[in-house]
Amino acid sequence: MSARRFLVEPAALEGQLVQLPPEEAAHARKVLRLSPGDEVQLIDGRGRRALAVLQSLNKKGAVCRVERVETLEPPRPRLVLCPGLLKAPAMDLLAVKLTELAVDQVRSMLCARSVPRARDATAKRERWQRLAGQALKQCGAARAPQFLAPGPFEEVIKQAPASALRLLLYEEETGLSLAQALVAAPAADEVWALIGPEGGFSEDEAAQAGQAGFVPCGLPHTILRAETASIALASVIRFARG
Amino acid sequence: MSARRFLVEPAALEGQLVQLPPEEAAHARKVLRLSPGDEVQLIDGRGRRALAVLQSLNKKGAVCRVERVETLEPPRPRLVLCPGLLKAPAMDLLAVKLTELAVDQVRSMLCARSVPRARDATAKRERWQRLAGQALKQCGAARAPQFLAPGPFEEVIKQAPASALRLLLYEEETGLSLAQALVAAPAADEVWALIGPEGGFSEDEAAQAGQAGFVPCGLPHTILRAETASIALASVIRFARG
Repeated sequence: MSARRFLVEPAALEGQLVQLPPEEAAHARKVLRLSPGDEVQLIDGRGRRALAVLQSLNKKGAVCRVERVETLEPPRPRLVLCPGLLKAPAMDLLAVKLTELAVDQVRSMLCARSVPRARDATAKRERWQRLAGQALKQCGAARAPQFLAPGPFEEVIKQAPASALRLLLYEEETGLSLAQALVAAPAADEVWALIGPEGGFSEDEAAQAGQAGFVPCGLPHTILRAETASIALASVIRFARG
Repeated sequence: MSARRFLVEPAALEGQLVQLPPEEAAHARKVLRLSPGDEVQLIDGRGRRALAVLQSLNKKGAVCRVERVETLEPPRPRLVLCPGLLKAPAMDLLAVKLTELAVDQVRSMLCARSVPRARDATAKRERWQRLAGQALKQCGAARAPQFLAPGPFEEVIKQAPASALRLLLYEEETGLSLAQALVAAPAADEVWALIGPEGGFSEDEAAQAGQAGFVPCGLPHTILRAETASIALASVIRFARG
């Protein structure tokens, strides 16, 4: 079924007939070789999924008739991941994997030890959002994370609400593990997690985050690449309970 | 420090003077521009790590003097991951990420829905082992997983000892989550986990695994790509407790 899932604009699911975006229509016709009458899924990337039937399909485009629309409950807790900005291939991998892992928001941060700079912040954001949309069609998740343009570390940490469980993955932290931090705050409805760039957080950043209410904790046994730490953390938040 | 970590043969750490492999010596000289007297780490990929000092370094090679050798305790539980064989890029990603996540053994399986076939099984195994060695130098893990050549599903599931917690990640399973399966068996000293290829396990395979003592469980909220499921599962086993 995954091959027959198409991403449409949220507004499109308001009507009964939906025109597929040109790229999706071409994919349906040339790659999937679908025909009128075939069942397809339409997702809007924001939690709604429609069962639909392909009504027409030709060089000019594709039109689907919506049979049923359902709104999928977002997983809990709400998860806001804040990775230090990484080089492009690592950020691309994150855009895809954090979509599969149903992360709600990704706020990348410019840290003291971030190598890439914030040039083309809007283009970066748009690229990650596009990669996330492609990933959605493959994975079955109903929502793409919302990607924000990279922002300064100091600004990002201020945005976390006091009601959220705020975690700082910090490799210098050997006292408290992620598991222990989660046991201490089992009912959080929202989690914000800061993950350092390659090279980790500076001592000053760790101190700032601590003052802003972030609990420093570590992943024992090994030192992960920065992108792997983000993926591992999202995995634990999503799958270690429930 | 990660840039100054070198992989050597296990036997090399028996002596006090260690000759770096030619590739490592060239890297130390040309890329890292190290000089005699510089401190380096030597790892054998099997849990031993030596603090050493570079004694000589030239076109002919590099020799280190070992100051101290320590054996790092393996993380518990022992984790044997059995992914359905995937296409080469996905397997390459797994080789790296499962090394970072300190997986002990990787036994890839030829499943009913595996697309790649078992051609060049030895070459595949050697490639993954080499990628794991490179990954070791970048992360701080002390051991590379042991990669086995791909084997038939039926053979792999027979190898799991009865004392191990045996898990089958099965997307048709909506009754029991991974978290619930782990709660039910908290003290396992060894975990074996089967993860399907793209397309998942066949019903017949799921039945066979069940008869062999594997507990079917699912990852709620989303359907992950096969390689992401392996990474997520290893993350949960390694970091959700302790």
